[in-house]
Amino acid sequence: MELAEQVLAGNRRALARLISFVEDDDLAARDALALLYPHTGRAHVVGVTGAPGTGKSTLVNVLAKTLRGRDLTVGVVAVDPTSPFTGGALLGDRVRMRDLAGDPGVFIRSMASRGSLGGLALATGAVVQVLDAAGFDVVLVETVGVGQAEVDIARTAHTTIVIEAPGLGDEVQALKAGLMEIADILVVNKADRPEAARTARALEVTLGLGWGHADNGAWRPLVLKTVALDGTGVPELMDALFSHRAYLQESGLLRQRERERVRGDLMHLLERDLVARLIARVGEPALDDWVRRIVEREADLYAAVQALLEA
Amino acid sequence: MELAEQVLAGNRRALARLISFVEDDDLAARDALALLYPHTGRAHVVGVTGAPGTGKSTLVNVLAKTLRGRDLTVGVVAVDPTSPFTGGALLGDRVRMRDLAGDPGVFIRSMASRGSLGGLALATGAVVQVLDAAGFDVVLVETVGVGQAEVDIARTAHTTIVIEAPGLGDEVQALKAGLMEIADILVVNKADRPEAARTARALEVTLGLGWGHADNGAWRPLVLKTVALDGTGVPELMDALFSHRAYLQESGLLRQRERERVRGDLMHLLERDLVARLIARVGEPALDDWVRRIVEREADLYAAVQALLEA
Repeated sequence: MELAEQVLAGNRRALARLISFVEDDDLAARDALALLYPHTGRAHVVGVTGAPGTGKSTLVNVLAKTLRGRDLTVGVVAVDPTSPFTGGALLGDRVRMRDLAGDPGVFIRSMASRGSLGGLALATGAVVQVLDAAGFDVVLVETVGVGQAEVDIARTAHTTIVIEAPGLGDEVQALKAGLMEIADILVVNKADRPEAARTARALEVTLGLGWGHADNGAWRPLVLKTVALDGTGVPELMDALFSHRAYLQESGLLRQRERERVRGDLMHLLERDLVARLIARVGEPALDDWVRRIVEREADLYAAVQALLEA
Repeated sequence: MELAEQVLAGNRRALARLISFVEDDDLAARDALALLYPHTGRAHVVGVTGAPGTGKSTLVNVLAKTLRGRDLTVGVVAVDPTSPFTGGALLGDRVRMRDLAGDPGVFIRSMASRGSLGGLALATGAVVQVLDAAGFDVVLVETVGVGQAEVDIARTAHTTIVIEAPGLGDEVQALKAGLMEIADILVVNKADRPEAARTARALEVTLGLGWGHADNGAWRPLVLKTVALDGTGVPELMDALFSHRAYLQESGLLRQRERERVRGDLMHLLERDLVARLIARVGEPALDDWVRRIVEREADLYAAVQALLEA
């Protein structure tokens, strides 16, 4: 049986193997993704992002458990875009959900950056598609850190949850992180801390000022308070998630987000394949020679691009 | 007189205008960059990065002042890769160096992401080249946030300074941020806080464990303590900067880093131009039609790429 068919039949080992192929950009992955593609489009994809220290992993854990309690199956993709040299996610990400292990309704995978950020966003999108086709009702994509990585990965999500923690810098820092602009739901976690109310108010004021959100249409981002460690506020977060899903479907935005995602993925793949073809044609030595000439200041970057494109 | 010649002659208004062209990827910028390119390769490029709240901007400010005190001219590029929707750096970045304004030996520019991260890294590299050609002895590239953005921008720097603050999360968080792996010099700023010594020791222990640094050759990253607000530790930081510069020159690594940077830039430019050419040939409507068909599950991504490449 084909790998893709095994995945569709619910074989978890096949699922894990296919995801490894996707990460390695193995050709077998491309064939399988093509076979799985007609079976995608059913899962709700939720991005969960926030700076280190906000309790993001704990919240993802409790979200997964709560969704399981509502009889929904959950895939979790924990993305660590910050470690290109060690080439692997930290052990903590792999072991922290031990209490969910053994439940066939949950599948957890850590991913680390192996090359460019564009590559990671693309691989993450492909892994989400595999989990979607495999029948998971909800796919949680957890990202570590702040920045463009989160924005790119948010494009693959239907609902983006941004987590803040009280006292982790003031409102300007929150703005600086740029995460508010991609948030459909803002969560102040660790809400048992005294500064939580002040942080939530500051976020609400900032939202009121109309920063960002141009692409969110009529959806007004919600600010919620949770204590992931004891589950406080998690039912409200769950309700917000389902209202956002309903809003996306009724407004037609679900389809629009899908179009944007597809266009982005298509561009990434075209870039990669076009450059690979060019290198195959001109040869690595010619490329190396241009690099040498640029370093020696015998030629400039644009002259090299011009010459290589005309080759 | 050409814009590039005006920049070489020390005209600051021409410099500002050219940098705007670079940010907009104006064709005039490409011509000017080609003319300026033979005049580059003299500046020492220093990346300064760290999470929000570490006092990074204050440290960049005091570094610039100290370098000026040693009769070196300084260009500062403050990069904010986190705000693709508001499309501009926060006001704070633009006004915070007011006490350096009016000094012709200093040039400060804020840059924000306008599109892809690759685009920002490329634009940052080009702005650094312009400042290099314009004769600045040191170019400080300050990045906000953590993640792949910092790694990409670090590739354009000769020396990368990573700033930590005491009590901003534990050692695992520092590792998670992935910044230690790109650091030539680690600075614990706000070192007047009681936890500073503990943070510095934790960083030293982690370095001793041999995390990352595979590409740093024999350079053993230094851990320094500073109080940017009153200048404590800044002379030692300055010495570390100059020793790292000397090390890079003597070991041949300066040239190796340059080769890697040039190759990366060349790839980015080729990707962009190749895709632009493809779109010009097949036309936007054909591309839109493929996107629609993929969204409708009539075709998959890889079939679309195949068909577009064969067009």
